[in-house]
Amino acid sequence: MREVAIIGTGVTKFGELWNKSFRALGIEAGMKAIADANLAGDEIDAMYIGNMSAGRFINQQHIDALIADYTGMASRHIPAVRVEAGGASGGVAFRQAYIDVASGASDYVVVGGAEKMTDLDDASINSVLDATADAEWEAGMGVTFAGLHAMIAQRMIHEGIATREEIASFAVNSHYHGALNPNAQFRKEIKLDTVLRSGAVAEPLGVFDCAPISDGAAAVVLCPLEKAKEHTDCYAKVAAVTQASDTLALFGRGEDITTYRATVEAANRAYQQVGITPADIQVAEVHDNFTVSGIMALQDLGFFKKGEAGKAVMDGQCRIGGKIAINTSGGLKARGHPIGATGVAQVAEIADQMRNRADKRQVPNAKYGLAQNTGGIGSAATVTILEAI
Amino acid sequence: MREVAIIGTGVTKFGELWNKSFRALGIEAGMKAIADANLAGDEIDAMYIGNMSAGRFINQQHIDALIADYTGMASRHIPAVRVEAGGASGGVAFRQAYIDVASGASDYVVVGGAEKMTDLDDASINSVLDATADAEWEAGMGVTFAGLHAMIAQRMIHEGIATREEIASFAVNSHYHGALNPNAQFRKEIKLDTVLRSGAVAEPLGVFDCAPISDGAAAVVLCPLEKAKEHTDCYAKVAAVTQASDTLALFGRGEDITTYRATVEAANRAYQQVGITPADIQVAEVHDNFTVSGIMALQDLGFFKKGEAGKAVMDGQCRIGGKIAINTSGGLKARGHPIGATGVAQVAEIADQMRNRADKRQVPNAKYGLAQNTGGIGSAATVTILEAI
Repeated sequence: MREVAIIGTGVTKFGELWNKSFRALGIEAGMKAIADANLAGDEIDAMYIGNMSAGRFINQQHIDALIADYTGMASRHIPAVRVEAGGASGGVAFRQAYIDVASGASDYVVVGGAEKMTDLDDASINSVLDATADAEWEAGMGVTFAGLHAMIAQRMIHEGIATREEIASFAVNSHYHGALNPNAQFRKEIKLDTVLRSGAVAEPLGVFDCAPISDGAAAVVLCPLEKAKEHTDCYAKVAAVTQASDTLALFGRGEDITTYRATVEAANRAYQQVGITPADIQVAEVHDNFTVSGIMALQDLGFFKKGEAGKAVMDGQCRIGGKIAINTSGGLKARGHPIGATGVAQVAEIADQMRNRADKRQVPNAKYGLAQNTGGIGSAATVTILEAI
Repeated sequence: MREVAIIGTGVTKFGELWNKSFRALGIEAGMKAIADANLAGDEIDAMYIGNMSAGRFINQQHIDALIADYTGMASRHIPAVRVEAGGASGGVAFRQAYIDVASGASDYVVVGGAEKMTDLDDASINSVLDATADAEWEAGMGVTFAGLHAMIAQRMIHEGIATREEIASFAVNSHYHGALNPNAQFRKEIKLDTVLRSGAVAEPLGVFDCAPISDGAAAVVLCPLEKAKEHTDCYAKVAAVTQASDTLALFGRGEDITTYRATVEAANRAYQQVGITPADIQVAEVHDNFTVSGIMALQDLGFFKKGEAGKAVMDGQCRIGGKIAINTSGGLKARGHPIGATGVAQVAEIADQMRNRADKRQVPNAKYGLAQNTGGIGSAATVTILEAI
C-alpha cells in the first residue's frame, strides 16, 4: 500500500446554522479543502461522505449523489461513496478514502462529513440519536443514548475510576480550547460549577456534559505522499488509520462497561503500525459526545492509566501546554457535533496541528497527533494517527 | 493492486418475510456465504454492508455494528462498514470491499446487503423511496420515484426508442427466469398482457412494471485471487468493479433522459479495464427497478443499440439460450428488491453463473458476466465484471 498525505482541510462554522442548508455546508467545506490543497475540482478522482442520517434529518438519502452533483463532480461522473457508522461516520469515511488512495485506485480524494440536524424538532432529533443504540433491546425498551452514557458514568464513579467533578471537568477543558476556535459553536470558557449545576439530562450527566445539536461540515483532501509536494509544502502524513467494532448494545460488554474495547483495539493496532506508544502523541481529538466518553477515551487510548485521566483533566494537564493537548478544536462539546462531520473535523484539526496551521490553538513542535471517533455506545471506533513532515 | 476472487455466496429467500427480522436475514446470508467459502468466522478480516435505510425502515442506524455483533465478528473487533447509495448501496459496498482486498489491507472480507422493508406501511415506504430522488427539487415538489421513471418511459416511447409493449416485455423476461429461482419472490411466468393491463402506478407504468417491496439479504466472500484455491475449486475472478455518479435530479441531465450516463461511464471504464467489449458478456444482472430501467440498462451497457433493446427482449433474445441471458435470477422485478441487498445479490448470481452453480438458471460456458446496480434516478451506478476461471 502507498503512503498517503493530507494536503488540504476545510471546516465550516459549527452551530445552529438556520440560514445554511445541508448542501451549502457540504459544498463550503469541500471547496475550502480543495482550494487549500491548491487543486482544481477537475483533479479530484473520488469523494467519500460521512453522514449519519440525512434520510431522517432532511428527508434525503443518496447523499453521495447529492454532494457529487452540487460540487460539480457528477459532470465527470467520479465515484462518490456515503458511509454511515453512527457517530463514527466521519472517521469511517476517512478510513475508506485512505484505503482508496493507499490501494492505488485513486490519487486525489476528497473526504467530507456533514450533518444538518437543527431542521428537526428536539424529540425527533433524539429519536434519530437513539437509533444508533440497539433499537430492539435498548432504545426500544426506553433507554436513551444519554441514559446509556449515564450508566457508564455511574459505574465509573462507583468503581472510583473518576469522581463526578473529574468527569465534569472534561467539559471545562473542551470549552477552554473552544474559546480559541473561531469556528466553534461555543466560544466561551466555563467553570466546573456550571457543568455540575446544569440541568439534569440523565444523572449524573447534565446539559453541560452533553455535546450540542449542531449543523456543520468538514472536509480533507488526500493524495499519495510522494505527490503531496507537487501541490503544497504544507501537508501531513497519514501514519495509520484503524477501525474496530464492538457489540451494538452496552449490555453485550459483560462486566466492564468503563472501557470501549473498540477504541483500545483500534488504538493498539494504530500504535503498532506506526511503531510508537501513546507517550509519543502530543495532541489528540477524542470523541467527547458526553464528558464521560472523553474521560474514557483518555484511558482507552493509553494517555493515562485507568483512574488517572479525570485527575489529569482537572489539573489542566490536557490543555495546550500540558502533558497532552486534548481537543484543541473545542471537541464535540464546544466546537459542536454535527454527527457525520465530527470524525472528519477531528482529522482536519489534527492535520492543521501537524501542518502548523492551528493559529491560537497550535501545539508547538508536535510530531504525532491522533483522532479518535466512536459510533453508538462505543460500538465502532476509528483511530487516525498523523505525522508532521 | 492485487487480483481478487469471490469464493462464497449466500442469498436468502426474497419476499414479504414477516417472520424474519433484519438481523436474522443478515446473519443467514452472511453465514451461508462464509460456509460456502469453506471459511470459519474467525478468518474474516473485515465486513461491508450495503443498506439503504434501516434508519427509517426499522429505526436502526449503525448497521455496521449490528451485523458485526450478531455475526459474532465484534468479539474480534474487526472493522465493519455500512455504505449507502440509494438503490446502489449493495454495489457500492461490494466495490469498497473489493478495494479493501485489492489494496492488501484485508485478505478475507464478507460483503453483505440487507433490507427489511415490509415492517413499514406503504405510504411510509414510498416516502423512504422518494428520498433517493432530490428531496428539495423533485420529491419536495410532489413527484414520486415511480413518476420520474414514468417520464423516462414516456420520452422513450415519444422518441421511438421502445414501444409500450417492448418496455412491458422486460417484466415478462424477468418473471420467466424468476420461475426458475427457488429464492425468488415471484416464481411464476407472466404474459405481456398481464403487465399492460396491470393497475396504473404512473402512466405508462403499471404495477407489473415496478419491482416489489421486499425483505431479504445477500452476501459474498472476497479474498486475494492467489489464495482462492486454498479454500475452494469453485471461485470467480473479479475482473473489474467501477462506479460513476450523475446529477441527483433527473432535470439536471439536460436534453437526454433516456440514457443513464453513470451506467455508460461505469461500463466503459469496466470494459476498458478488462480489455473486452459488451459482446464478450454472456450473462448479466441489470437494475430493473422499473421495466424501463431494464431496457435502458441493456442499451447503456452496450448490449444493444439504442432503439433495439426493447425488440430484443420481446423476441426472447434476453432469455437463457438467447443472445445474452439477462437477469437469470429473476431480476429486481421477480426475484425481489430488498434495496440494500440487491447489488450484492446481483453479484452473487453472476458469481454463481461463473462458478457453474446456477442450477436450472445456468448459462452454459459463460466466460464473462456483468452486474449493473443503480441508485436514485441513475444518479449512481456500479458495474462489476466477473470472469470464470
